[in-house]
Amino acid sequence: MNVVLGIDIGGTNTKFGLVNHSGQILDKGSLKTGKYENASALATEIKIRCDAYKYQITGIGIGAPNGNYYSGCIEHAPNLSWKGIVPLKQIFEAQFGVKTVVSNDANAAALGEMQFGVARGMKDFLVVTLGTGLGSGFVANGRIIYGHDGFAGELGHTIYDYEGRLCGCGRKGCLETYVSAGGIVKTVKEILSKHKLSTQLSQHNDLNAYKISEAALAGDEFAIEAFETTAHILAKKLADAVAFSSPEAIILFGGLARSGDLLLKPLQHYFEHYLLNIYKGKIKILLSSLNENDAAILGAASLAWD
Amino acid sequence: MNVVLGIDIGGTNTKFGLVNHSGQILDKGSLKTGKYENASALATEIKIRCDAYKYQITGIGIGAPNGNYYSGCIEHAPNLSWKGIVPLKQIFEAQFGVKTVVSNDANAAALGEMQFGVARGMKDFLVVTLGTGLGSGFVANGRIIYGHDGFAGELGHTIYDYEGRLCGCGRKGCLETYVSAGGIVKTVKEILSKHKLSTQLSQHNDLNAYKISEAALAGDEFAIEAFETTAHILAKKLADAVAFSSPEAIILFGGLARSGDLLLKPLQHYFEHYLLNIYKGKIKILLSSLNENDAAILGAASLAWD
Repeated sequence: MNVVLGIDIGGTNTKFGLVNHSGQILDKGSLKTGKYENASALATEIKIRCDAYKYQITGIGIGAPNGNYYSGCIEHAPNLSWKGIVPLKQIFEAQFGVKTVVSNDANAAALGEMQFGVARGMKDFLVVTLGTGLGSGFVANGRIIYGHDGFAGELGHTIYDYEGRLCGCGRKGCLETYVSAGGIVKTVKEILSKHKLSTQLSQHNDLNAYKISEAALAGDEFAIEAFETTAHILAKKLADAVAFSSPEAIILFGGLARSGDLLLKPLQHYFEHYLLNIYKGKIKILLSSLNENDAAILGAASLAWD
Repeated sequence: MNVVLGIDIGGTNTKFGLVNHSGQILDKGSLKTGKYENASALATEIKIRCDAYKYQITGIGIGAPNGNYYSGCIEHAPNLSWKGIVPLKQIFEAQFGVKTVVSNDANAAALGEMQFGVARGMKDFLVVTLGTGLGSGFVANGRIIYGHDGFAGELGHTIYDYEGRLCGCGRKGCLETYVSAGGIVKTVKEILSKHKLSTQLSQHNDLNAYKISEAALAGDEFAIEAFETTAHILAKKLADAVAFSSPEAIILFGGLARSGDLLLKPLQHYFEHYLLNIYKGKIKILLSSLNENDAAILGAASLAWD
């Protein structure tokens, strides 16, 4: 049976799976990215695993941080131990002998949603991945916008506040310093320090987005306020994004998106408020429907079929 | 000889021209838009003029304010006396018997630049029209981004300052309230009132962008400051636009763009400053190379060939 190999390379885990054209994952595995001193060693290990499965692999799609569609390389990914330019496409094509397509994880997610998720049948939409950072993949006229150099879709690095939080990119006030797993933690800390409060939340030394989400579900008003603030900021920048690309829908994907209505309800409210009149009431905000564990593999596999 | 008819409908003038595939305008004319009580009357007049020219018209492209590519209609254009929904495509197809394509003037400008101007050979670029308002046309993968409903490309209605100037759209702080012919006039007035100054500029009751440009060229420091401020604001929002679409170039078109280095030099400086690292030094800001009088007709004609 002909299948493609979808690989999602992350800072911690690398997931891979053999996927048929209907989006079924026939076999899959997971490796610790940090165990492999370079991408060639990782490719060798994945080849050994795949050989055991006895499928005919006809193509490979890889989603990776800072993965560039045009060059086929990972370019200076801050969250990987492999530094500089990593020629991923070349390495996997040499190892497997089949065409390999590389992109970043947000573009892979967008293709995954178009092929197997809530964006089926859509030609103009936007996927926003809410994880450690904020990534985005824009689809217009049925195609991913890679841009001239493969680096389009950096919604997380549009500026929310020019005098705001310091970003890992060296600038101030990037959207992802507010709207991301780390961003919401900072927001909670700001709220608590502003009110000089000691609540259940402030007793966590290792506060994270998951704990904030749990606290909000349990009714903690400051955790709920943090989700409101996060939604408010995201709404403003999504309203700007709509003015560029007038999408049919915006699809939220990843960790923070799994907080569901906590984020979604205030986001939909503020989003409508900030939209230019001609867009009001027209644009859906949806949560990804892909199975959390498989979404990254399916997204990567979609690259091979695009 | 086969030609297409390019029509640019503006609030004041409607220009039309018969254009061959090399971008030569073989004949052209201009009408006062306000003289025609509806679009049918305008179409009838243009038909009479074109019949006199004895060319075989194979298609029509029309650039119009709020012209929607999908519906073929002008939809609620604030600057035209024809109110509501005007079925332009239907009217011109009935009158001329050839396929008619409608879009807004910024998208027409983008196609004109791609076919005949400085964007020849580019597949990913952005045209910004700086006139009474601020329009934009995004091209990605060699195609205009119309979006799901035909209303993509409203860069002028992304928000620069949520507490800022009131916009005609009813919201506050839209980019075009700062960066446009009217925007720079407001900026000059703010500068003069802040400094409580009476200069040559403040003696103009009917100050306009052209007079500010003349004053700046003559060395007026407040006019120069207004161009600096305008460039600074535009640079911030263009840096955001780059993060969406990673274009090869940004092309400035229209009235304010004709002020040349007055706007361009500070814009290039601030633009580089605000760009995310991965884009720095890569993206050209260019002025339109199309002849000012013909650009709108060529842009509209490009719609018929797209």
